[in-house]
Amino acid sequence: MKIVTQADRSFIPSLKKASLRGRAAGAAVEKTVRTILQAVERGGDKAVLRYTKQFDKVSLKPEDLRVTPEEIKNAYFHIRKDEGDALRLAAQRITAFHERQRTKTWMYQDNDATLGQVVTPVDAVGIYVPGGKAVYPSSVLMCAIPAKVAGVPRIVMVTPPQKGGINPYLLVAADIAGVTEIYRLGGVQAVAALAYGTNTIAKVDKIVGPGNIYVATAKRLLYGTTGIDMVAGPSELLVVADDEAKPAHVAADLLCEAEHDEDAQVFLVTTSERLAKDVGKLIEAQLKGLQREKIASKSIARHAVAFVVGTMDEAIEVANDIAPEHLTLSVDNPFDYLEKIRHAGALFLGRYTPPSVADYIAGPNHVLPTGGTARFFSPLSVNDYVKVSNIVHYTKQELAKVKDPLVRLANIEGFDAHAKSAQSRFS
Amino acid sequence: MKIVTQADRSFIPSLKKASLRGRAAGAAVEKTVRTILQAVERGGDKAVLRYTKQFDKVSLKPEDLRVTPEEIKNAYFHIRKDEGDALRLAAQRITAFHERQRTKTWMYQDNDATLGQVVTPVDAVGIYVPGGKAVYPSSVLMCAIPAKVAGVPRIVMVTPPQKGGINPYLLVAADIAGVTEIYRLGGVQAVAALAYGTNTIAKVDKIVGPGNIYVATAKRLLYGTTGIDMVAGPSELLVVADDEAKPAHVAADLLCEAEHDEDAQVFLVTTSERLAKDVGKLIEAQLKGLQREKIASKSIARHAVAFVVGTMDEAIEVANDIAPEHLTLSVDNPFDYLEKIRHAGALFLGRYTPPSVADYIAGPNHVLPTGGTARFFSPLSVNDYVKVSNIVHYTKQELAKVKDPLVRLANIEGFDAHAKSAQSRFS
Repeated sequence: MKIVTQADRSFIPSLKKASLRGRAAGAAVEKTVRTILQAVERGGDKAVLRYTKQFDKVSLKPEDLRVTPEEIKNAYFHIRKDEGDALRLAAQRITAFHERQRTKTWMYQDNDATLGQVVTPVDAVGIYVPGGKAVYPSSVLMCAIPAKVAGVPRIVMVTPPQKGGINPYLLVAADIAGVTEIYRLGGVQAVAALAYGTNTIAKVDKIVGPGNIYVATAKRLLYGTTGIDMVAGPSELLVVADDEAKPAHVAADLLCEAEHDEDAQVFLVTTSERLAKDVGKLIEAQLKGLQREKIASKSIARHAVAFVVGTMDEAIEVANDIAPEHLTLSVDNPFDYLEKIRHAGALFLGRYTPPSVADYIAGPNHVLPTGGTARFFSPLSVNDYVKVSNIVHYTKQELAKVKDPLVRLANIEGFDAHAKSAQSRFS
Repeated sequence: MKIVTQADRSFIPSLKKASLRGRAAGAAVEKTVRTILQAVERGGDKAVLRYTKQFDKVSLKPEDLRVTPEEIKNAYFHIRKDEGDALRLAAQRITAFHERQRTKTWMYQDNDATLGQVVTPVDAVGIYVPGGKAVYPSSVLMCAIPAKVAGVPRIVMVTPPQKGGINPYLLVAADIAGVTEIYRLGGVQAVAALAYGTNTIAKVDKIVGPGNIYVATAKRLLYGTTGIDMVAGPSELLVVADDEAKPAHVAADLLCEAEHDEDAQVFLVTTSERLAKDVGKLIEAQLKGLQREKIASKSIARHAVAFVVGTMDEAIEVANDIAPEHLTLSVDNPFDYLEKIRHAGALFLGRYTPPSVADYIAGPNHVLPTGGTARFFSPLSVNDYVKVSNIVHYTKQELAKVKDPLVRLANIEGFDAHAKSAQSRFS
């Protein structure tokens, strides 16, 4: 792990580089993605299956796309009982947390007028679940449960076709979470099918879930044609640690994110140069023998940085500048720092909150803004699956009271039909 | 106004066409916009000023971009006192409504764990205000006040340069609403400057406000680089009216939206063919002599449709299929229908709620989802200007309780560093 101190001239460029991570794809990717989107919009199932053959090397007929109830039932026989129980426990805790996020309809009387907001669930959502060797049933729970809690009636999951069938953990997680349709379909063609609809897959109103740069770009280009969640990039963790932090715990926490992806990025910000050095050594030691040692090693070598700062306040400022996906505060009194922290997807407080407890079982969502987007994006939540309608009800009496300023404002903007629509009620 | 009945074979294609309105721009616009975005990202102020000269035919130096405090002060001398009072009244009512939208930080104890959400304002937002002949100070209030209520410290407005200076109504509205910086800058170059920052304009975290197809595409391409609000299209109003509705009021309400834009679209859905015919005639009569007669006439001729249906339930279903920006319920008991309405940006209830009272003075936001996007987008609100950080705090004791299922889930996903980060606390 590279260590930089504020005295180093390398501190500022490192910080600047850190805050420039995770930039959007450029014109070339956009062009490729736009071509596939248009082909699926025009060609429907036929285009979807052509791209599936081309990219996933799997030949399917339209009727093969949907995963059958039997396949889902069979999936339970391919996982252990204690694994199913762990998924169910996680689902319960995720449900409990997200039930507190429910936004309610509200109205109030403003003299004789009634104003308010009606909150309704989206009709249908699509959840993109990446394929490949690594499977993340926990992400299926995190994406689907808030939709279920929001009251979304149609929850569709898509995941790339696999030679041996869809991974049973994904199917069980989808079933536990309340997914209502599953299709073996991935890549830009899956996102396009969800957005535009095909003969086999009815269109959805919102698409969520992480994917590679092509999937992420497809979602971005479709923003407004359909709703999307945040644009996800590689995982990140920033640990703010004081002198008392245990180096072994800090190293273990940093490796949690590093094992996700070669492009995952971890930061340590500490007032203790000794801690930074010890953590660096322990990371090397703990890397040995990890199942994903290669991936984690590359992530650490390429991206890991320890910033040594003078005070805890400076440490928090570095954290705010980076606006990390995950921010661990390894201090004794973490709640004292809450007011100073402006940007982070999730905060892991204290010495006994490893990232993994939040990733899997605590309850809050683990789909979080990355690449500095915690400056404006929020964690995936029930609010992503509902929408609001403003409510305005006026009586004749109340309209009479505001007619004059209303007409004045309409006249400023040159909208006399606006003025007349109010005046017509009194003529 | 074209009238279609359910018996007509034209009913279904009309409905389908209605729900396909407002599609996203294609590859050609994306390419043009991407070029400008890249030029501004690389060239900063220089590129911004080059495009301003090219598109707005105005030559500026960097130091001319920012509107000065003197210009803002002078603007008050160019508007009448009753106009300023009307803007202030609107601002008060908008503030009062949006204060009810504030989302609060919450936390709770889950046994020995603490879970919750911290809500914080975005650091800086940019508001795009279109130029041209028509000026909408009301939209400045609607975009800026929720940011102010959210507690955003830096509220930046951009609007295209005008030969005679920025319109004084826009400047007064910005001042009343609490805008902190104003730049005379428009088009894709303004959006790019806000997203990437230049020497003169510091970058913002979120960009809101309506614009033409190029501005809208720029925002879409920047989604994830910066936060954006919904992608806005032409105005829409759908009026559901029963037999008792007054044709003159319905016609006046429909013209309110039609005068916005030649591409604005209005719909009438009614159980009364007589009403549809009367409204059609009255629209023609009321059009005569409107300041914006040409625009409104084109909108009506091109896009206006009246659907005649058998029952009020069918009328609501048509409204749900179209998912309009504005939905008027011209009935005596509008609250009885609320549960059946699934998709609309704003609901205007009853006989005495013309669209103009909601546009200007009622208080709820008038920046609303168009083009059927009310299926997944919500009105602009305080929530667009804040973001959430999830909070997780575990104690050693609580971590011990969930360690085993946590390790099981980590093993399913092949993440042994995740498992070890929890186990390390007990070794």
